Amino acid sequence: MSTATFTSPVIAAASAHSGVESPAARPLAAVTGAELQAPLIQGGHVRYANLDYGASAPALTVVSAYLNEILPYYASVHRGAGYASQISTSVYENARNIVREFVGGRPDDSVIFTRNTTDSLNLLAGCLPAEDGRYLGEVLYLDIEHHANLLPWQGVPHRSIIAAETLAETVNNVRAALAQGGVSLLAVTGASNVTGEILPIKELAALAHEFGARIVVDAAQLAPHRRIDVASADIDYLVFSGHKLYAPFGAGVLVGRPDWLDAGTPHLAGGGAVREARLDSVSWATGPARHEGGSPNVLGAATLARATQVIASLDNDEWHAHEAAIRTRLVDGLKEIDGVTVHQIFSDTDPADTIGVVNFSLQGYDAGLVAAYLAAEHGIGLRDGRFCAHPLLKRLGLPSGSLRASFGVGSRLEDATRLIAGIKALKSDGLGWDYVVDAGRWVPANDHRSYPEWAPNTPGTAGAAPCSTD
Amino acid sequence: MSTATFTSPVIAAASAHSGVESPAARPLAAVTGAELQAPLIQGGHVRYANLDYGASAPALTVVSAYLNEILPYYASVHRGAGYASQISTSVYENARNIVREFVGGRPDDSVIFTRNTTDSLNLLAGCLPAEDGRYLGEVLYLDIEHHANLLPWQGVPHRSIIAAETLAETVNNVRAALAQGGVSLLAVTGASNVTGEILPIKELAALAHEFGARIVVDAAQLAPHRRIDVASADIDYLVFSGHKLYAPFGAGVLVGRPDWLDAGTPHLAGGGAVREARLDSVSWATGPARHEGGSPNVLGAATLARATQVIASLDNDEWHAHEAAIRTRLVDGLKEIDGVTVHQIFSDTDPADTIGVVNFSLQGYDAGLVAAYLAAEHGIGLRDGRFCAHPLLKRLGLPSGSLRASFGVGSRLEDATRLIAGIKALKSDGLGWDYVVDAGRWVPANDHRSYPEWAPNTPGTAGAAPCSTD
Repeated sequence: MSTATFTSPVIAAASAHSGVESPAARPLAAVTGAELQAPLIQGGHVRYANLDYGASAPALTVVSAYLNEILPYYASVHRGAGYASQISTSVYENARNIVREFVGGRPDDSVIFTRNTTDSLNLLAGCLPAEDGRYLGEVLYLDIEHHANLLPWQGVPHRSIIAAETLAETVNNVRAALAQGGVSLLAVTGASNVTGEILPIKELAALAHEFGARIVVDAAQLAPHRRIDVASADIDYLVFSGHKLYAPFGAGVLVGRPDWLDAGTPHLAGGGAVREARLDSVSWATGPARHEGGSPNVLGAATLARATQVIASLDNDEWHAHEAAIRTRLVDGLKEIDGVTVHQIFSDTDPADTIGVVNFSLQGYDAGLVAAYLAAEHGIGLRDGRFCAHPLLKRLGLPSGSLRASFGVGSRLEDATRLIAGIKALKSDGLGWDYVVDAGRWVPANDHRSYPEWAPNTPGTAGAAPCSTD
Repeated sequence: MSTATFTSPVIAAASAHSGVESPAARPLAAVTGAELQAPLIQGGHVRYANLDYGASAPALTVVSAYLNEILPYYASVHRGAGYASQISTSVYENARNIVREFVGGRPDDSVIFTRNTTDSLNLLAGCLPAEDGRYLGEVLYLDIEHHANLLPWQGVPHRSIIAAETLAETVNNVRAALAQGGVSLLAVTGASNVTGEILPIKELAALAHEFGARIVVDAAQLAPHRRIDVASADIDYLVFSGHKLYAPFGAGVLVGRPDWLDAGTPHLAGGGAVREARLDSVSWATGPARHEGGSPNVLGAATLARATQVIASLDNDEWHAHEAAIRTRLVDGLKEIDGVTVHQIFSDTDPADTIGVVNFSLQGYDAGLVAAYLAAEHGIGLRDGRFCAHPLLKRLGLPSGSLRASFGVGSRLEDATRLIAGIKALKSDGLGWDYVVDAGRWVPANDHRSYPEWAPNTPGTAGAAPCSTD
């Protein structure tokens, strides 16, 4: 099989579906790189179908433009009297208010800018209530969590429980664990990064409070897909990342009650975090400054805030219809294919609501090989591996990983249709190229595609971060 | 005093100096925002004179353009087979090589991307050699350090010494402290962020090694002004920040010997940092991944690397002549003014080489008031306060702070000349406006200048980070 140019089998199929245009026929919002052309291993190019939003979403075009608009004003924040410093300080401090409003935070909630969700949760782990160096309680978490919401708690007193077959039973299990007492914090994801299933965070918050605990919600996956109202859902702490919310400029955030945060261990010892430093001792500041040691990522925080404004401005119905159309096409299309399994945590007897994440496997094929094939022969980007959720993947019977297609406001139905066509073609025609394992990752053999000069084609570097590969 | 438009007293003066153009008549490299117009409190605008590079430097225009070039390709690194993920991974992993080359690192040196210098040093503090939970030595530091290179060590066994009158005596004091034994790490700045004075890092590295210790150099200030050669100077660890090196996109770096880093505490517990995670335990990765938990700041690292390439490409003589011309104009001009003191750590009997940082006070005026006046009436941005170096400021007899003018490749002689003219005008004519203290900072009274709509003029927010103000 060798074609000079790739002709998508998809566009015709999408428009043939019905006379009414699908709510996902087009992207809901413009993203930078939407028309990126991916070189195919057999020659030619095709529009890159980005089905990896759940890992890192592209920048909204509005956000990219905003970055360029504010960049000429960039200067040190807080500590300069100059015009550019005043502007930058205004942008940075107002970003807190914008983010607080986006999540429906309480007026006195702290908004602390971090590096990403992992960083936010590590920060919170340093702020658990303690007296005389003894923790006042344990952190309770489920086995379905991303490592970001699992590993930070391994360094403090903790207890973990296995999620049950259904959401209702899972909530009951959480209740039983809380009822044993001694839990200070319930740490739970808003939506699974593996399957996209949404957890009942309002219900879990009420449960936590009933037993004298607090709740932190890992909203890395949920925030880009659903409105969250911290105050009305009574969530104590909420964390998420800019890079999954269309602002990939190195900032994440922690929003929540200030008391623990103002008493906790300063997240980074350094300039800005202190009231008064002496040569051998220090008195720490309170407020966000306590945890934002060093020069903050002004542009990261500003763009994250700008992205939340764009997301907040979406029409809720259009937003969810766009996402549901793509998800339905994907799930229905994949389930039709013999040998494909779509994975979920909770049983269909009590199905969870879902975000734009679909997890699946193809019998007889390594997930990594399928991902490499879809990339090289169909211009699709999706993720394979264990999704930094090793315990869950093991329990789902997927110790060597699976595939994840994830999408968002810049996605379109054709992305889903192309994925399905690609899997069907694999089933009917087999691989159209040879693939080899290089540094733990499947890659096309003899890959001579030309990449931009500043990004030489270096298969194998993907093995640099071992989270998904071993 | 009230003028509708500001006429700079400077341009004529600069060109009148001599027939030969100064090496700093123009910027050495283009930066984004170079022609930013600052509104003056008495009306009119003037080009913003940014003399605050030492806190946060503007982006190089080349770097801003590069960011926009790579942004359409942004995607998850390491864990995606898709074209954009492959490109992003290549960019991210190659950034390590570019930075390693910039600092003359050894082939096996780890290059770990962090948030900033503070973050890098906190990371290293978690990697000090220990056995059975007992540290194998102390960290030794001077009293002249920025908090970033002071506070991280307060959480581990440490010893501090006071810098002496001269560099030579200071080196002797370091020798004496090392000779007492028990030091595992000497932590020293490459150049003072307060005065710009450069420390003899090669000599200090040799000294540390003589006594079985290692050295970490805080190059946040040095790297943007001087070439550093880690291998030939035998520096074990080097840290610096993108935001002071013309790439203000939220990334910093730690370069150095891998053994301590591969054995140390993972800096952020989370995805990517692990080999295998279980529900209640984990085996950590080695290499950079160990410390880069969570999704990395790909664009921050890439732009930092790009900036190092631009800096590396500067002609060394032109670079230093440009900087020296501005510094000489500043220091000479300031010293001529009655009541102005230029501060330094080391005495003139054995003067230290200096980078583009000048620290001074004006008798009878609060530093913060002078900074507010220079900003509002002359469109100058510089920094006042204690520069996150409280112990040094106290010892220099400046417990309530001083002023710092700092500059770089985007600066020009006129910036210095304008500052001097501004101080002279203050001496001769007094303040041209009323100023008040708002939330701990001096600001112009009745400030009705219009700012960009996305950055409302909010005097007082500067007090948000207490490092410099109290």
